[in-house]
Amino acid sequence: MNIELGKLSPEMGNAIIEAAEEVMEGLWDSHFVVDVYQAGAGTSQNMNTNEVIANRATEIMGASEKVHPNDHVNMSQSTNDTFPSSVNMAGADMIIAKLLPALEKLEQSLQKKAEQFMPVLKSGRTHLHDAVPMRLGQEFSGYAESVRAVRRQLQNNLELLYQLGLGGNAIGTSINLEAEYTAKILKEIRKRTNLPFCQPVNIFAFMQNMSAPIRCMMTLKELAVHVIKMTSDLRLLSSGPRTGLAEITLPSVQPGSTIMPGKVNPAILEMTHMVCCQVIGYETAVSTAGTAGQLEINVMMPMIAYTFLHSIEIMSNALQTLEAKCINGIQANEEQCQKWMEESLALVTGLSSKLGYDMASEIGMQADEQNKKLKDLLQEKELLTDDVRHAIDPKGVV
Amino acid sequence: MNIELGKLSPEMGNAIIEAAEEVMEGLWDSHFVVDVYQAGAGTSQNMNTNEVIANRATEIMGASEKVHPNDHVNMSQSTNDTFPSSVNMAGADMIIAKLLPALEKLEQSLQKKAEQFMPVLKSGRTHLHDAVPMRLGQEFSGYAESVRAVRRQLQNNLELLYQLGLGGNAIGTSINLEAEYTAKILKEIRKRTNLPFCQPVNIFAFMQNMSAPIRCMMTLKELAVHVIKMTSDLRLLSSGPRTGLAEITLPSVQPGSTIMPGKVNPAILEMTHMVCCQVIGYETAVSTAGTAGQLEINVMMPMIAYTFLHSIEIMSNALQTLEAKCINGIQANEEQCQKWMEESLALVTGLSSKLGYDMASEIGMQADEQNKKLKDLLQEKELLTDDVRHAIDPKGVV
Amino acid sequence: MNIELGKLSPEMGNAIIEAAEEVMEGLWDSHFVVDVYQAGAGTSQNMNTNEVIANRATEIMGASEKVHPNDHVNMSQSTNDTFPSSVNMAGADMIIAKLLPALEKLEQSLQKKAEQFMPVLKSGRTHLHDAVPMRLGQEFSGYAESVRAVRRQLQNNLELLYQLGLGGNAIGTSINLEAEYTAKILKEIRKRTNLPFCQPVNIFAFMQNMSAPIRCMMTLKELAVHVIKMTSDLRLLSSGPRTGLAEITLPSVQPGSTIMPGKVNPAILEMTHMVCCQVIGYETAVSTAGTAGQLEINVMMPMIAYTFLHSIEIMSNALQTLEAKCINGIQANEEQCQKWMEESLALVTGLSSKLGYDMASEIGMQADEQNKKLKDLLQEKELLTDDVRHAIDPKGVV
Amino acid sequence: MNIELGKLSPEMGNAIIEAAEEVMEGLWDSHFVVDVYQAGAGTSQNMNTNEVIANRATEIMGASEKVHPNDHVNMSQSTNDTFPSSVNMAGADMIIAKLLPALEKLEQSLQKKAEQFMPVLKSGRTHLHDAVPMRLGQEFSGYAESVRAVRRQLQNNLELLYQLGLGGNAIGTSINLEAEYTAKILKEIRKRTNLPFCQPVNIFAFMQNMSAPIRCMMTLKELAVHVIKMTSDLRLLSSGPRTGLAEITLPSVQPGSTIMPGKVNPAILEMTHMVCCQVIGYETAVSTAGTAGQLEINVMMPMIAYTFLHSIEIMSNALQTLEAKCINGIQANEEQCQKWMEESLALVTGLSSKLGYDMASEIGMQADEQNKKLKDLLQEKELLTDDVRHAIDPKGVV
Repeated sequence: MNIELGKLSPEMGNAIIEAAEEVMEGLWDSHFVVDVYQAGAGTSQNMNTNEVIANRATEIMGASEKVHPNDHVNMSQSTNDTFPSSVNMAGADMIIAKLLPALEKLEQSLQKKAEQFMPVLKSGRTHLHDAVPMRLGQEFSGYAESVRAVRRQLQNNLELLYQLGLGGNAIGTSINLEAEYTAKILKEIRKRTNLPFCQPVNIFAFMQNMSAPIRCMMTLKELAVHVIKMTSDLRLLSSGPRTGLAEITLPSVQPGSTIMPGKVNPAILEMTHMVCCQVIGYETAVSTAGTAGQLEINVMMPMIAYTFLHSIEIMSNALQTLEAKCINGIQANEEQCQKWMEESLALVTGLSSKLGYDMASEIGMQADEQNKKLKDLLQEKELLTDDVRHAIDPKGVV
Repeated sequence: MNIELGKLSPEMGNAIIEAAEEVMEGLWDSHFVVDVYQAGAGTSQNMNTNEVIANRATEIMGASEKVHPNDHVNMSQSTNDTFPSSVNMAGADMIIAKLLPALEKLEQSLQKKAEQFMPVLKSGRTHLHDAVPMRLGQEFSGYAESVRAVRRQLQNNLELLYQLGLGGNAIGTSINLEAEYTAKILKEIRKRTNLPFCQPVNIFAFMQNMSAPIRCMMTLKELAVHVIKMTSDLRLLSSGPRTGLAEITLPSVQPGSTIMPGKVNPAILEMTHMVCCQVIGYETAVSTAGTAGQLEINVMMPMIAYTFLHSIEIMSNALQTLEAKCINGIQANEEQCQKWMEESLALVTGLSSKLGYDMASEIGMQADEQNKKLKDLLQEKELLTDDVRHAIDPKGVV
Repeated sequence: MNIELGKLSPEMGNAIIEAAEEVMEGLWDSHFVVDVYQAGAGTSQNMNTNEVIANRATEIMGASEKVHPNDHVNMSQSTNDTFPSSVNMAGADMIIAKLLPALEKLEQSLQKKAEQFMPVLKSGRTHLHDAVPMRLGQEFSGYAESVRAVRRQLQNNLELLYQLGLGGNAIGTSINLEAEYTAKILKEIRKRTNLPFCQPVNIFAFMQNMSAPIRCMMTLKELAVHVIKMTSDLRLLSSGPRTGLAEITLPSVQPGSTIMPGKVNPAILEMTHMVCCQVIGYETAVSTAGTAGQLEINVMMPMIAYTFLHSIEIMSNALQTLEAKCINGIQANEEQCQKWMEESLALVTGLSSKLGYDMASEIGMQADEQNKKLKDLLQEKELLTDDVRHAIDPKGVV
Repeated sequence: MNIELGKLSPEMGNAIIEAAEEVMEGLWDSHFVVDVYQAGAGTSQNMNTNEVIANRATEIMGASEKVHPNDHVNMSQSTNDTFPSSVNMAGADMIIAKLLPALEKLEQSLQKKAEQFMPVLKSGRTHLHDAVPMRLGQEFSGYAESVRAVRRQLQNNLELLYQLGLGGNAIGTSINLEAEYTAKILKEIRKRTNLPFCQPVNIFAFMQNMSAPIRCMMTLKELAVHVIKMTSDLRLLSSGPRTGLAEITLPSVQPGSTIMPGKVNPAILEMTHMVCCQVIGYETAVSTAGTAGQLEINVMMPMIAYTFLHSIEIMSNALQTLEAKCINGIQANEEQCQKWMEESLALVTGLSSKLGYDMASEIGMQADEQNKKLKDLLQEKELLTDDVRHAIDPKGVV
């Protein structure tokens, strides 16, 4: 852009472009030596980039002229506008390329299981206590919707990530900058990425805060909360094989114990749960850093950048694995589901519209004390009319 | 609705309606004795409501018939569908009635200050160090946008709050329920509230999680993060009166010290900051509870409900006060802003496009060491050409 | 103390003392009108106190002389030394009077259950999957130790709470203060409270931070983490009655469902879990506020004070109730424990020292696939020697 | 130990020992390929270790006999006792070798600065507003004490880290284990490490929870909170050079801006602040995982282990750098300190004991409005007696 605006000679400009392309291809990765935890605001990381490009561009030009990292490579830029813009670009790219597809796949897989398991009757459980009957597929349809709802929120968040503060430079006032620079550079970026990157609603807000990563991390945490709930459920439903609920069986991925032979654990679910805990922690790190902004910029940028992008990565990987190695191969243990359901006392709920809450309650407790099935107790009490039989038939209530 | 469906006699149904209206008017508040931290899922709170209504309805009917809290008042309901639905309704109501207006007012007030302070030139600061000049109004325009961006997110969240699980009852399977109940009750609620309440996308997801409060709390936290940043800035800008930046003056609300006479502190900003810390903590409480859902419901509901609604309340009150007692009366200290700007060495930035980064840097450091103003040093060095004079003129760069 | 030092006339001093005693007795509670979220640092709360005392003292003196809230009541004090000192005193008092006894009682109750349940053999579970046998009492002995370990940490924290910054006044420099004031006032406080309150190691550190509440909140969170784990376990072990593990039975405290008659939920465990989530949130609020201290004081004090003391209160109440209404009445379902244990395949672990991990593993998996008990399969395979029989006998391994 | 107990032949046992020593020396690092986020409880990591050692031991024995990873290398062990024990050992080692020395050095450096800066008079600031005078050294003495207090807490935590659950094996019941194994192995470890490792108070509590890492992470967070406060103060005190407080000057470590020449930022303080935010986030991750323990073990161990040890590492490195590259080279700007102090109106505090709070307050506000120094206004009002002059002399009050 600086060539186009006549600020940089085509020779030097093109050498810089070539060097930058090489950097993007990963040719000079080993020269990026700056740690995450460095000077605030990313000056070190930006200068690392500027210097690698400057040195390589100088080489490309045959050292005929020395390319200056600040005067030439950083021309029209400041760390303060370039760094957070590149975080937004990287975040949008990773969410679109990795996380959203992983979520979509997971949602579809859960939806498929929901359909597959819809015929399976089972006992519902609230408070971990016997509740009225339901279908195993209904539980899974709930999981699918949880994933879908967060996926949609994440898609909405892209709108904020698309805002780039390029051209705002040091603090938003566009010092040392041609007027048309910002519009031109954004047009170029849109062309190259095919994504609707644009100017921020307010350039000062963009620079004062790290709004987009902060918001996205919250949605990643929202995702983590719901995935923890879902994977905990699946661990509960697959508990056993002999001493647990055992309503579903997970695909086995590895021996589960170094001392207990034959043990198979819900390894993928546990791995996912661990990643979710980590992401919840990362959100805390980012929002804590978010409160530490002062005046024109938030100097915590490098940590926020790393934590945000790393969170997308581990979350995407975990969910991909979760879908492929676990959800996709879950099998229902229909007999076990049936057994629990028939033993459950919660079928008494159907009675309350016939006999009233108080009498239904009394019958339920008697069945519990006498350790009888509901149907048997009702028969004994000569209460098992056709009407009542129908009221406590699981098939009638789900 | 139960009268309409022929499940309840009109006499009893109307007595229940009358009793419920009285409860909503607050006539029986002293009979709501159940603590927040009670049995999971809100059974205690729901039964408290059912019993108060049942007893009062019995009175209204002249005790001709006994109204049963479960069989009659709770008819077609379960705590599990009614409780989270009422949380969503209360949340939507409070956000619409209190929080969104407070945010709108605050945003307008900040926007007004942004316009008012646009002529005031000042030194920008990054890393709390001298940066290039800017306008005081630009800083405030950033604050206004931060508020607007979160307000918009909160409005988007309403969509989730509008989903009510009424009619799902115990676990989403609508046991003991007429088919048309759900559609009818939602139509009635829309009519009465004028808000687009509707069925959830998936009733099982609605009951398994507390998605709406969890998401809204995250947005409240997002708000808290940005408000902490803004109020911290304002405390910094108003620091002094003699030993700080003193670029703005806040309206004085009360003597600031019991021992230091004449001290005036940024009390409203501090109060707001405290409320924001509390809300950040409340979000942690809610998302921690969010991970604790198990199978068909999340029994942490009562705590989530209280924490969510209380957060809206203290945040709304704090922001209202912030706008009325602080933002609205902020005054710019133009002279002080001018003084800092002229002393700042960051004006050297304008030089780098003339003399290159390295020489500009050298001059900046010399001015610092010799404790001179930039203009004076340049004059001494006979570098103060018209061109250079223009390059370091604040008015030229903002 | 100001009378003794000759700074205040005995008449006025005694009137102030009398008024202050009345305040402590609660006679003027309705005059304490300041909200938690008020001016930073607690100036409002301190002035509220000073003014109530001044007005009442003036009344007591027959209005012969006007008692001034700053000059007389606040004499030798500043909000900055008095407020955090009173937080420490209140915290120490509440921990000693309520929380430590509740913890001690809970620990004893768990220990008693550990002993009572030591004869009960059951299947251990890791990853929610069948593990080697153990005793129910061993699980409870672990819970007892978890409680004990945190109780001890809390006792250690008292050391920090005992440090009072009285006499430091505005910022630690003891302006307007007689040299002997601090030592004398602390001696008086020790006499009156029987607790070893003392000067802080460094008065500036005391005033810069709110170290004691911050540390205590972390220990309250540590407690919450372990109590969540324990109560979650107890909910799991008592799950059922028909569709869960049902190894223990909790005392019933209230009907569990408004729609499902006869349902009894683990209400007390859920209540405790909710309180723990809240306390974890409160810790976040306090540590977030803790990072917001600036220079000589942390103005977030009032919020920290409220949150800290409220956390002690709800945690103490929850644990007291937990012990009395739940732990104390837990009963073991020995038959159910026995049944799970015998069905468990983890007994195969004992085989690995006889047959090697690989063959033991193979046998375990065959038993799983063929849905047989381990002993039966071994018999079939003619491997059930006396030696092997002994190796897989639960009584031999616990 | 297994050789000594006669369970393993000396040849194989010694080959295993030799292989394990090589692993510790790092010779086989490239064979440790398991990711942090793997199967719960660390089974994968433990098996990775067992297999590397088994293969290498087989090689060492000349493949005369095949060493089995479970039967031989893992003999007398289970992941469930070995993994958390090794986390405690690594944590203790890193805290003792890296973090405690870093803290001690930092504390000494701050203490040295406190002494060096004790003669420097300056204006205190509360609420970022002018407060009474103090000494710069007093502020630093507060920082030193903050560090010391956390260091001491960390040392106390070692007691919990020293508890090792070795010999508890799968779930604490010591299945497949000789009675004397535990005591013997611990004795050997004490000898080799010179640290007082011992059996846990209760083996079941040790295995149910990850108490030691959870507690240590809280203390790391406590440290982070106080270090954030301190580094934020130092950034404030060093703000400028022209548009801030500029009471101290930090050693310069690198150019601070890619666009603003001559800018020097508080890079080390910012780096430290970022690390502290990260550690606060890591504590959230660990305690969230801490609540997810179920029954006999907490399967989140691998994530907890990584997060805990990584936190110690980044915190140690940050604090070492902070001390060496920043604290150690801080210089006081005495003139600037003096200037702020003389302009401060808070000197009026000394007047209140002479003239009463109300009149002192009035004088303070007049000086503010008329923009005069206190001394000048008092002279004008003919109130500047010797007594008053003394009361407002900074040297008299600090």
